[in-house]
Amino acid sequence: MPVDLTTLTSREACVAADRADPLAGYRDEFLLPEGVVYLDGNSLGALPRAAGERARTVLEEEWGRDLIGSWNKNHWFELPTRIGDKISELVGGGAGGCVATDTTSINVFKALGAALRIQQEDRPERRVVISERENFPTDLYMAEGLIEFFGGADGAGYELRLVDGEEELAAALGDDAAVVMLTHVNYRSGAMWHMDRVTRLAHEAGALMVWDLCHSAGAVPVDLTAADADFAVGCTYKYLNGGPGSPAFVWVSPRHLDRAVQPLSGWWGHRRPFDMAVGYEAGEGVSRFLVGTQPILSMATMEVGVDIALSVDPRLLREKSLALTSLFIRLVEERLADHPLTLITPRDEESRGSHVSFRHPEGFAVMKALIERGVIGDYREPEVLRFGFTPLYVGFADTWDAVETLRRVLDEGIWEAPEYRLRGAVT
Amino acid sequence: MPVDLTTLTSREACVAADRADPLAGYRDEFLLPEGVVYLDGNSLGALPRAAGERARTVLEEEWGRDLIGSWNKNHWFELPTRIGDKISELVGGGAGGCVATDTTSINVFKALGAALRIQQEDRPERRVVISERENFPTDLYMAEGLIEFFGGADGAGYELRLVDGEEELAAALGDDAAVVMLTHVNYRSGAMWHMDRVTRLAHEAGALMVWDLCHSAGAVPVDLTAADADFAVGCTYKYLNGGPGSPAFVWVSPRHLDRAVQPLSGWWGHRRPFDMAVGYEAGEGVSRFLVGTQPILSMATMEVGVDIALSVDPRLLREKSLALTSLFIRLVEERLADHPLTLITPRDEESRGSHVSFRHPEGFAVMKALIERGVIGDYREPEVLRFGFTPLYVGFADTWDAVETLRRVLDEGIWEAPEYRLRGAVT
Repeated sequence: MPVDLTTLTSREACVAADRADPLAGYRDEFLLPEGVVYLDGNSLGALPRAAGERARTVLEEEWGRDLIGSWNKNHWFELPTRIGDKISELVGGGAGGCVATDTTSINVFKALGAALRIQQEDRPERRVVISERENFPTDLYMAEGLIEFFGGADGAGYELRLVDGEEELAAALGDDAAVVMLTHVNYRSGAMWHMDRVTRLAHEAGALMVWDLCHSAGAVPVDLTAADADFAVGCTYKYLNGGPGSPAFVWVSPRHLDRAVQPLSGWWGHRRPFDMAVGYEAGEGVSRFLVGTQPILSMATMEVGVDIALSVDPRLLREKSLALTSLFIRLVEERLADHPLTLITPRDEESRGSHVSFRHPEGFAVMKALIERGVIGDYREPEVLRFGFTPLYVGFADTWDAVETLRRVLDEGIWEAPEYRLRGAVT
Repeated sequence: MPVDLTTLTSREACVAADRADPLAGYRDEFLLPEGVVYLDGNSLGALPRAAGERARTVLEEEWGRDLIGSWNKNHWFELPTRIGDKISELVGGGAGGCVATDTTSINVFKALGAALRIQQEDRPERRVVISERENFPTDLYMAEGLIEFFGGADGAGYELRLVDGEEELAAALGDDAAVVMLTHVNYRSGAMWHMDRVTRLAHEAGALMVWDLCHSAGAVPVDLTAADADFAVGCTYKYLNGGPGSPAFVWVSPRHLDRAVQPLSGWWGHRRPFDMAVGYEAGEGVSRFLVGTQPILSMATMEVGVDIALSVDPRLLREKSLALTSLFIRLVEERLADHPLTLITPRDEESRGSHVSFRHPEGFAVMKALIERGVIGDYREPEVLRFGFTPLYVGFADTWDAVETLRRVLDEGIWEAPEYRLRGAVT
C-alpha cells in the first residue's frame, strides 16, 4: 500500500515512512557519504557497493591475468548485447533489440541516421526532423550535425523543426515529417511526454519515433513495445547507477532490425568482424549498431547498477518516486511559501518524471549554498534548482531534511554571501 | 650503446642482454602472469601495476565520495584534453591539438569527415578518399559509411579508392583525390609507411593526410608536426597499455584547428556546453572533436599507461624494439628453417613497426598450441602468426623462449592435435 502523504507532516512521520518503505533495503546497496542528501542521481547515480569488487576483478583477474584471452574467456565481446538485453527488459523492449555502447549523443546519431535512411526509402519526400525546443541540447546538436552531413555535399535540404508541447507537435506533424525525436522526461522541468499517445500521433502522420530515455530508464515505467516506438537511446549513469560516463544504449524495434542501417559502420557492427574483409557488411540485428572497441572497465562495472535496477519491482519504484516528488513539492510550497520559488515541474503525476525543479531568481547562489550544506541538487540555466529523487537511495526523511535546509538557506539569506553568488562552472 | 645482436646465440646471452637493458626497470611497472611470454601487447597491452590503485581512487573517492562534484573537483571534465596533450607529446603533435575520447572507429569518422569538409570548401571537385586495401578494416568501413552519408540523399558521388603500397598510392593520387587515409603500421604485416614522404606525396597532389597510429603510438617514433600531417587518430589499449577498450584519441593539425568541423556535433564539443543553447556552436580548437560524456573509469585508469609511455626515452624504446624484432626474425629463420614459415614483415628496419608476422599454412592451429604453452601471440586471417614486441615488458630471453616454444610446437607436430585444429573465435 502506498504511503499516505497527508500523514507526513513532521520529520518523525517521514522517518516512520522510511521504516515502512518496501524499497528501504536498497539503500544499503549503495555507498553514499555521511551527512549528505543526494538529490542529483539524475546527473550521476550513486556508487553501488558491489561495483568496487567488480572493477577489481576486471582489472586484476581479467585484464591482468587473462589478458587478451578475456575477450572470449571472460565474455568481454558479449557485454554490449548481454547488458543491452537487460536494459531492454527495463524499458519493455523485449530481447535482442538493444545494445549497451558508446555515448547517448553518438547513439542519437545512429538512431536518427537509421530512421532517416528508412524514410528515404519509404517516404523520400519527407525531409523534416521534429524535436522539442527544450530537449537536452546534445540531441539537437547531433541532429543538426547529422542532417547537415546527410543533406550531403549538394544539399538535400533536411530541416530540424522545434516545437513546445504536444499541441504544437501535433500541429507541426505535416506530410513532410520524417522523424519525431523527443526526450521522454525533460532534463530541466521533469515533464514527461505521454509515450503511447505521442508515438501514435507520429505514426498516424507517417513519421518514425525516436525516444531518448536518459531521465527515464530506471526511474519511470517505460514500455517501448506497448508504445510501438521505432528507436530509443539512453544513458546508464543516471538512474541506472552505472558510473561516470558509463556506456549508453540504443534500441531498435524488431520491425526495423533487418533493414535499419546507421552511418557509423565500424568493425564491431560487421557481420563477421574477424574475417577482416575489405567491405562492410552490416551484422545481424542490433549488432550493427555497434561501432568500435568498447571501454570494458566502465562497461563491466556499469552492469552492477543495471542488475540492481532489474531486481526492483517497477510498480514500487514508481509509487515511491511519485510519493517523494509529491511530498517535496508540497513541503516546499507549504513551508517556503513566502519565497520566490516557481514550480516548473508538472503537478499532474502522469506527466512527471522522477525529479522536481523550481525556478528562483538567484537559483545559482541558492544551489551553491545548499550543496555546501550537504543537500546536493543541481543548477540548470536559467535560474533552475533541480532535485532528483532516486527511489533506491533517497528516503522521506531525506526529503524533509532537504526542504528544511532549503528553508534555512532562504529564510536566513545564506545564499546572499559573495562566495555563492560568484559564478563558476557548475555541473 | 645498442645490444650487439650477433652475440645473442644462446639463452644465457639473452639473459645477459636483459640485465644490461636500460629499459629493464620498466618490466616491474607491469603485472604479468608467471610463466607467460606476452607477445600480444599490440592487441591488448599489459596491466600497469599502478592502474588498480587509480581505478580504486576513481571509484571510491571520486565517484563514491565526491559524486557529481568530481566533474570539477577531480577534473573529470579535463581528462580528454589533459590526456590528449600527453598523447600528443608522444606523437609529436604539440600542445592543444589532441583529445582522448571515444573509439578509434568514431575518431576516423570525425577526422575523415572534417577533412572532406575542408576539401569541399577548398577543392570541391575532389571526391576520392584513398586508402590501403590492407588497412585495418574498421577504417575502411567507417570511410564507407561516411562517404555514403556524406554523399547525401541525392548522391554526390564520393568514392573510396584502395591501393597497395607507396607506388600504387603515388599513381592513384590524381586531381580527384580529396583525402589519403593510411594506418602508419599495418596491423597484420607490421609494415610501416614512411610518414614524411607519404604525407608530402599527398600534399603535392592536393590531398589531405589522415594517419591512423593504432600500432604506432608508444611503439615507434612518430612526429606528426615534422611530417606536416593534417589529422591523426589512434588507440590507447595497445602499446600505451590503457586497458581493454580504453578511449582512443584524435589529433588535428594547428593549421586546421579553427576551421575543422566534424559531423558528430555533441554537447561536449559545444563552445559553451552548460549554456544549454538550442543551436550548436563548435568549441574552440580541438574541443570540437569531443561529442558526449566519456567513460571516466576507463579514461582515468588509462592515463596510468600513458604516463609510463611518456617517461620512456623514445630513442631507447625504438632501439630495443628493433633489436627484439630483428632477433626474433633471425632466430626463427635460423632455428626453424625447415618449416614452412614465410616472413611477411619487412626486413628493412625503417619499414618495420614493433611486431613480426609469419605465415604458416596451419597458422591457426600453431598459434593455439603456442598460446597453451604460455607464448601468447595472435592469429590473423589468413594464416598469419603475429608476434608483438612491447619493449617495456618483453625481453631478449622472452624472445629466445618464444622461438624455442615455436620450434617445439613445429618440430614435434604438437599443433596437429585435433583440439588445436578446431576453429573457434580467436581474438
